[in-house]
Amino acid sequence: MGTRPLLDDEAACDKALALFHDIREKRETDYVNNFWRMLAHDPERAEALWNRLQNVMAPGALDPLVKEMIYVAVSVANSCSYCIHSHTAAAKQRGMTPEMHSELLQVIAMASETNSLANALQVPVDECFQAD
Amino acid sequence: MGTRPLLDDEAACDKALALFHDIREKRETDYVNNFWRMLAHDPERAEALWNRLQNVMAPGALDPLVKEMIYVAVSVANSCSYCIHSHTAAAKQRGMTPEMHSELLQVIAMASETNSLANALQVPVDECFQAD
Amino acid sequence: MGTRPLLDDEAACDKALALFHDIREKRETDYVNNFWRMLAHDPERAEALWNRLQNVMAPGALDPLVKEMIYVAVSVANSCSYCIHSHTAAAKQRGMTPEMHSELLQVIAMASETNSLANALQVPVDECFQAD
Amino acid sequence: MGTRPLLDDEAACDKALALFHDIREKRETDYVNNFWRMLAHDPERAEALWNRLQNVMAPGALDPLVKEMIYVAVSVANSCSYCIHSHTAAAKQRGMTPEMHSELLQVIAMASETNSLANALQVPVDECFQAD
Amino acid sequence: MGTRPLLDDEAACDKALALFHDIREKRETDYVNNFWRMLAHDPERAEALWNRLQNVMAPGALDPLVKEMIYVAVSVANSCSYCIHSHTAAAKQRGMTPEMHSELLQVIAMASETNSLANALQVPVDECFQAD
Amino acid sequence: MGTRPLLDDEAACDKALALFHDIREKRETDYVNNFWRMLAHDPERAEALWNRLQNVMAPGALDPLVKEMIYVAVSVANSCSYCIHSHTAAAKQRGMTPEMHSELLQVIAMASETNSLANALQVPVDECFQAD
Repeated sequence: MGTRPLLDDEAACDKALALFHDIREKRETDYVNNFWRMLAHDPERAEALWNRLQNVMAPGALDPLVKEMIYVAVSVANSCSYCIHSHTAAAKQRGMTPEMHSELLQVIAMASETNSLANALQVPVDECFQAD
Repeated sequence: MGTRPLLDDEAACDKALALFHDIREKRETDYVNNFWRMLAHDPERAEALWNRLQNVMAPGALDPLVKEMIYVAVSVANSCSYCIHSHTAAAKQRGMTPEMHSELLQVIAMASETNSLANALQVPVDECFQAD
Repeated sequence: MGTRPLLDDEAACDKALALFHDIREKRETDYVNNFWRMLAHDPERAEALWNRLQNVMAPGALDPLVKEMIYVAVSVANSCSYCIHSHTAAAKQRGMTPEMHSELLQVIAMASETNSLANALQVPVDECFQAD
Repeated sequence: MGTRPLLDDEAACDKALALFHDIREKRETDYVNNFWRMLAHDPERAEALWNRLQNVMAPGALDPLVKEMIYVAVSVANSCSYCIHSHTAAAKQRGMTPEMHSELLQVIAMASETNSLANALQVPVDECFQAD
Repeated sequence: MGTRPLLDDEAACDKALALFHDIREKRETDYVNNFWRMLAHDPERAEALWNRLQNVMAPGALDPLVKEMIYVAVSVANSCSYCIHSHTAAAKQRGMTPEMHSELLQVIAMASETNSLANALQVPVDECFQAD
Repeated sequence: MGTRPLLDDEAACDKALALFHDIREKRETDYVNNFWRMLAHDPERAEALWNRLQNVMAPGALDPLVKEMIYVAVSVANSCSYCIHSHTAAAKQRGMTPEMHSELLQVIAMASETNSLANALQVPVDECFQAD
């Protein structure tokens, strides 16, 4: 499956191996998931993306678990099967409980429902919602 | 604008007025936004939606501000102009700072980017991401 | 507004005028809407589309009003503001009552909600739903 | 597959079993499909959804088969593989013939095509399409 | 899998066989892919689509490889797994190198990212971007 | 309009002004468009995005006009009104003729149409389209 082969360690060039090494170290696991094995055919761009991802998902004004749940929400709305799976798993690993998962699902479902209603009705935006 | 007229207080039936009254009371403001003024032509369904919305967005395992940010994320991915405006405003009202808004934007942007990459590559889902 | 100018009758070439004439005749109105005024810069392709559209929306195994409501549903899910407006108007013209409009909105909203849940849960398709 | 395990009868709590029982009774079949087996980990919310779904899809101003076809149309535009499968099956069960299915596909395809054209051209909405 | 069975040569009527024959001839291969085997249950509409497709993708102001890459880009944004696979394969066959594929992915990812930012910020369109 | 105010030169901090200066220089125009005026409240992230954008859209294995047309295609499928306007304008500036624009529209429309058909039919991916 896929539009590019998965790159395994044996076939990887030095730059790709360095990326895999960094992923293993940061995540404290030997496992490198398929997303990176597909991107690593293009090791410089993959590494730049990996670095940005680390940066965006790091603790800041929002905590990492909140960020993972926002990531899941976007992935659901964009119908990205891979990202729904991988980021739901990541959110669980960062402490998302079944009850938090249920509420996340409820908010996504409610937003999807009202998005479709507001679009269907073509509701004009209230002036008070404008930033300036 | 819109595929249905806005319902103002003068034209509203008793059930619609009761809904507007409840919205005003719960939100502690006299303003009733356009979304509800369009839905209120169908007052029973509008009221049922309003009640569910209160319930879904109430404090629970996730706090209300986190829920609003997830709501914004879904609305962006679904291109719902009205909901992006209204729920960004709601998130600000619940305490979303400019820095939190910036990080929300960063996570949405990063997810959108990697969603498109995972879809374009049709990356097969790793077994370890499956729930069972 | 738009990424191409609207083509008015004065500026239209013979082929574009012939298309406008056919639209006016089939719809029994002098008004030519903006969609066709933008497409008519490319009159042969516009005419081919117009002919296919007539054909697809004609009475068949499904009646024209049902077809218009399906059209609206797709346009909402695709966030096409123009098509939501134009096909909701067309559905009303073909007899969609306010109660039918309300039920259309309810089905669209319900589908959007469960679509997001099934995507978020990545529910595996039951074998009995497969065609063969 | 999935981001939550399927709940089988053996593992289900009383509330989940009551939901499964109601699904079996209403549908006159012993089979409970995967969507409900995933949602039933959260039995109260699942039951509320099930009740709303029955209500929205019941005969009204629109007939149930028309509603199922609208449901399919939304699910296609939202790329929800599970819902496309399950609601196409439901539509067939409610009497959708192969010719009706073909016309449904034609309308969905035509709407998707013109949605993309209207979006690409950013056609301004004609005043006559506005509700007020 | 699928909501309609695949039509194999044995079960195909004369019109469907004629379509398969034309596909084989134009593509210089005996293989007929699943998309056409599903559409061919409705052979006249399938043939009309096949003819339009040939026409749209033929060399013109844009060359066929550029058209295939645009096709892939749309299919990714629409989350159409089948079309991503088939048109990425078609693009490779028309000469898309791994480096071109990488750049295609980069542009799709960048557009997806900035689409989400512009939507989240609801940036008003600059007057200079309007066609008239 | 918008969920953040536009940042004009007077209100801009030094870093934001440096970004505006770079945009003006690279584009050889005094005009800074609204997208950057909204992002520049967060000048470091805006600058990083600007630099990546320059890099992705630069001549490479694909030429800049092809890249702009791919950008437009993604933006249409994602319903991003702002990006459709701005990147169609950019494509015209890089030499997209009306005939090329027409063909771009045709390919986008054809892809949207067949995406919806392949999704509606849930066509299984042919083995020969898999990368490995």
